[in-house]
Amino acid sequence: MPDYNAPLRDLRFVLHDVFDAPSLWARLPALAEVVDADTADAILQEAGKITAGLIAPLNRSGDEEGAQWANGAVSTPAGFKQAYATYINGGWVGLSGNPQFGGMGMPKMLAVQFEEMLYAAGSSFALYSALSAGACLAIDAHGSDALKRTYLPPMYAGRWAGSMCLTEAHAGTDLGIIRTRAEPLASGSYAVSGSKIFITGGEQDLTENIIHLVLAKLPGAPSGAKGISLFLVPKIKVNPDGSLAGANAVSCGSIEHKMGIKASATCVMNFDGAEGYLIGEENKGLAAMFTMMNYERLSIGIQGIGCAEASYQTAVAYARERIQGRAPIGPQAQNAVADPIIVHPDVRRMLLTIKAMTEGGRAFASYVGQQLDLSKFSDDSTEKQAAEALVALLTPVAKAFFTDSGLESTVHGQQVLGGHGYIREWGQEQLVRDVRIAQIYEGTNGIQALDLLGRKIIANGGAALRQFTGDIRRFAEQPATPYSVALLNALERLECTTAWLQERAVNDPQVIGAASVEYLHLFGYTAYAWMWARMAAVAARRTEDDAFYRAKLATAEFFFARLLPRIQSLEASIRAGSDTLYGLTAEQF
Amino acid sequence: MPDYNAPLRDLRFVLHDVFDAPSLWARLPALAEVVDADTADAILQEAGKITAGLIAPLNRSGDEEGAQWANGAVSTPAGFKQAYATYINGGWVGLSGNPQFGGMGMPKMLAVQFEEMLYAAGSSFALYSALSAGACLAIDAHGSDALKRTYLPPMYAGRWAGSMCLTEAHAGTDLGIIRTRAEPLASGSYAVSGSKIFITGGEQDLTENIIHLVLAKLPGAPSGAKGISLFLVPKIKVNPDGSLAGANAVSCGSIEHKMGIKASATCVMNFDGAEGYLIGEENKGLAAMFTMMNYERLSIGIQGIGCAEASYQTAVAYARERIQGRAPIGPQAQNAVADPIIVHPDVRRMLLTIKAMTEGGRAFASYVGQQLDLSKFSDDSTEKQAAEALVALLTPVAKAFFTDSGLESTVHGQQVLGGHGYIREWGQEQLVRDVRIAQIYEGTNGIQALDLLGRKIIANGGAALRQFTGDIRRFAEQPATPYSVALLNALERLECTTAWLQERAVNDPQVIGAASVEYLHLFGYTAYAWMWARMAAVAARRTEDDAFYRAKLATAEFFFARLLPRIQSLEASIRAGSDTLYGLTAEQF
Repeated sequence: MPDYNAPLRDLRFVLHDVFDAPSLWARLPALAEVVDADTADAILQEAGKITAGLIAPLNRSGDEEGAQWANGAVSTPAGFKQAYATYINGGWVGLSGNPQFGGMGMPKMLAVQFEEMLYAAGSSFALYSALSAGACLAIDAHGSDALKRTYLPPMYAGRWAGSMCLTEAHAGTDLGIIRTRAEPLASGSYAVSGSKIFITGGEQDLTENIIHLVLAKLPGAPSGAKGISLFLVPKIKVNPDGSLAGANAVSCGSIEHKMGIKASATCVMNFDGAEGYLIGEENKGLAAMFTMMNYERLSIGIQGIGCAEASYQTAVAYARERIQGRAPIGPQAQNAVADPIIVHPDVRRMLLTIKAMTEGGRAFASYVGQQLDLSKFSDDSTEKQAAEALVALLTPVAKAFFTDSGLESTVHGQQVLGGHGYIREWGQEQLVRDVRIAQIYEGTNGIQALDLLGRKIIANGGAALRQFTGDIRRFAEQPATPYSVALLNALERLECTTAWLQERAVNDPQVIGAASVEYLHLFGYTAYAWMWARMAAVAARRTEDDAFYRAKLATAEFFFARLLPRIQSLEASIRAGSDTLYGLTAEQF
Repeated sequence: MPDYNAPLRDLRFVLHDVFDAPSLWARLPALAEVVDADTADAILQEAGKITAGLIAPLNRSGDEEGAQWANGAVSTPAGFKQAYATYINGGWVGLSGNPQFGGMGMPKMLAVQFEEMLYAAGSSFALYSALSAGACLAIDAHGSDALKRTYLPPMYAGRWAGSMCLTEAHAGTDLGIIRTRAEPLASGSYAVSGSKIFITGGEQDLTENIIHLVLAKLPGAPSGAKGISLFLVPKIKVNPDGSLAGANAVSCGSIEHKMGIKASATCVMNFDGAEGYLIGEENKGLAAMFTMMNYERLSIGIQGIGCAEASYQTAVAYARERIQGRAPIGPQAQNAVADPIIVHPDVRRMLLTIKAMTEGGRAFASYVGQQLDLSKFSDDSTEKQAAEALVALLTPVAKAFFTDSGLESTVHGQQVLGGHGYIREWGQEQLVRDVRIAQIYEGTNGIQALDLLGRKIIANGGAALRQFTGDIRRFAEQPATPYSVALLNALERLECTTAWLQERAVNDPQVIGAASVEYLHLFGYTAYAWMWARMAAVAARRTEDDAFYRAKLATAEFFFARLLPRIQSLEASIRAGSDTLYGLTAEQF
């Protein structure tokens, strides 16, 4: 199995050449203090080393062994403990954390690039800290100062991990119907009782403590989503000075046996009057959860890019080495009995599809990361609000499109290896299994699509969309913009389809859900077209003879010729409306 | 996990209402003797019982346990032995076998329907006899009378199994470079030596003997594909009277650890001067193999339909029971806290996509089966030749399109269950893993696409295609044909794209491989459009108030509105030609 190599050249291309991130950082005081071009490059370099050298080698053995549960305790696979200890020593868990409480305060744009490498090296390993980062965000945004002081430093340091306890057996997408309850105690804390499922890293043997963020209902709370509160429930209680006290009434009842991410423990967590602390206001738990959702959803989306990149590297290495058949134009390797399969057009089609979608996604992820940085660090309120609106609009696209493309890409990467892609030895089949969950968790991609079309577009009359399309149009209408015609055509298709849907939605409440997934894909390809046009513009300006830029231009060409046309069919399916979905009764299926 | 129920109503609809198979059987003497409508219905009914009652219950436990290898012996999972014994007692292995040697002589059309149930109940179990059927075909078509008399009866009876030994570690798609050798012996038999990989059922504990069909090279054979011969190599040597003699020099070196079909043993088979018998002529081994390829490829394609149907049944049952959120038009289950998720448009979109592709595929599989029956049993040479040409044309489409759709469908079926689809308990993730191999083995789907476009269309100037499109056009131009406009539009798109490719191919040898996969899909959707128009025509004629026919019409509507438009993008990608695939050197990937 080939080794993973962090795609540092391409990450730097995106960071510096395409988005000129250091210039932005220089003008945002909070970032100017901590990061510049050299620091960023050093961080990426180090991230490449630790992900490729420390984490990637554990990915397949971790899958084979899996996380194990016995008597309430979870053991991670061999090597995870030592690797995790090294990993947290690098400060990676608190990379973009609040410096006031021990975080490194780095831009999200950089964190996004680091996360791609982390998921590429090993999705299961990545998840043990990914949830910590999310929990820290919620605590930082909504917790009391006392909670922040006590919990954030050890969490940023990675000594304590975080978990997000939302789902219950009967309540996943529909959190309004959860049954976990929290009773106020005289001490000001709460007794939390209930059972949660699908809790990633709910229990493990990597950290001294686990800090669960738990959605629960207070006595007399309104029914539905407006009666949910958020609680911090530590696995081991914590003294005011931060030292560990006794065990809390929290236990792991079992772990799931899954298709993939087998080294990540997916836990049933039982809370039996466990001591917890309210985060944010009563009954505003979902809102508190959602403020950090955009950060977190983008990260999970990046799992799709990371897995695709890992699959691509193996597929390319295999396609260069494996000899089989002859090129359509005649033998290329005259002295061998056959040519390397990279001569075959269909093998190239698969490789280029992964490459174009992965590099397009990489650029788009960094773009959204940059908007997150603007929304967090800008002191210009207009700029801040504009970035916030873009982040809200683009996050569901990123999460769902990255991961849908991630499945397509890893399936291609497996197919390039033929039968060797189906056996475990090469690791390609594991990437398919591991990436598949990313289309489901953190809100299924169907839910992301509803969020995009229903809440982020139709509900606000398309204001955020106009901001986004305005940015694209301004770019495309510059003189000598490459692919400007194709880009503007895609944009127009997106706008016309949106207008059609807005009109339809007035009288047909079902049309949003009928169109949403295909609409999100139409949006995603259009966004990638913008990214590819921007990348091509940068690459075209370079005059030096550099294979990297030539490959970038050739890949852009492929994207516009072969992949962007997918929007034609997407539009046609959307315009079929909702009627054909309701021709059958539930019994007739 | 819901039980599998054989879709007998729909299978009968296809057999009787759509294709009126019994009328055809009645006029083909060999079939008239053995089958009529009642016999067929009885066979399907019994097939439904045995697949649902005997085989399906072993599917998940078989996946958990997997096939095991130790010291050269393979053990199948618990229950397989007993189930296999019951299964072969029903005569299923020889269902369409030659009656002269103990086969039942049933039409392929019926075998196709049986195979769908078999794969739906369990892909791994199915494979232990699927390969036998293929091996019998090759022996029946090319073996000497002595070989047929000795080997076919116990193989049709299922007491002996068959295997196909083609692939070697360095030679998969490119069989021309195999290294296995066969030395002629004084006795007239051969000593076969070499190592084969990826041999499905190469070793197992279900049958008394295993008959390997092995591709090997004779001394001094021409190099490449024209120097390959086919040998029958029994695991245990057989006396002239059919009784078992001693062990042959054949051994199983190990089995593969795979993504799925874990209960099926995928073996490394070593032949160390094993005694073998030539089948067919020297150096004509590939041709002998290919004569039965169409039969076999169609069967493997059907794995895609079977897995999709199984996934659909679980997804529908879940979507009717699982309550979560409210319908876009307001609460439907007023007394419950939430509505069943089948009210949501996007859940319906996923279910209808599976349903439309599965039922379309089911009809098309039976159609191709009917052509196979005509090509085999017709005594009208024009009809026979026409059927042969159609079979050659349509088999790669069936194999690849059924299995590509099978992956899409099982992924949808998994997605409907959200997180519950990702855990092993519900069986949905297993179907994704199991169906994935069907896009790879028996010739990857990329190879099927090359076969279709290169060999079956461009190479013969489109003659076979014209025959097929002529049939569709005659149907579509009948008065009052439902969806005739959409069908004719699709047909025209296929014809124009084909003409464009034919012209291009003259000067661009790479354009065939550049377009082939998308072309096969364009072809597949067009073929399904024909099937759906035919099914809708039949259903529309029924005047009784029957939910089955109403659902059929509604599903046709969905297919034409939401799925057929995919051909727009496929055409656009095809017309991008081959240039964009060659913009990068091998090193630039």
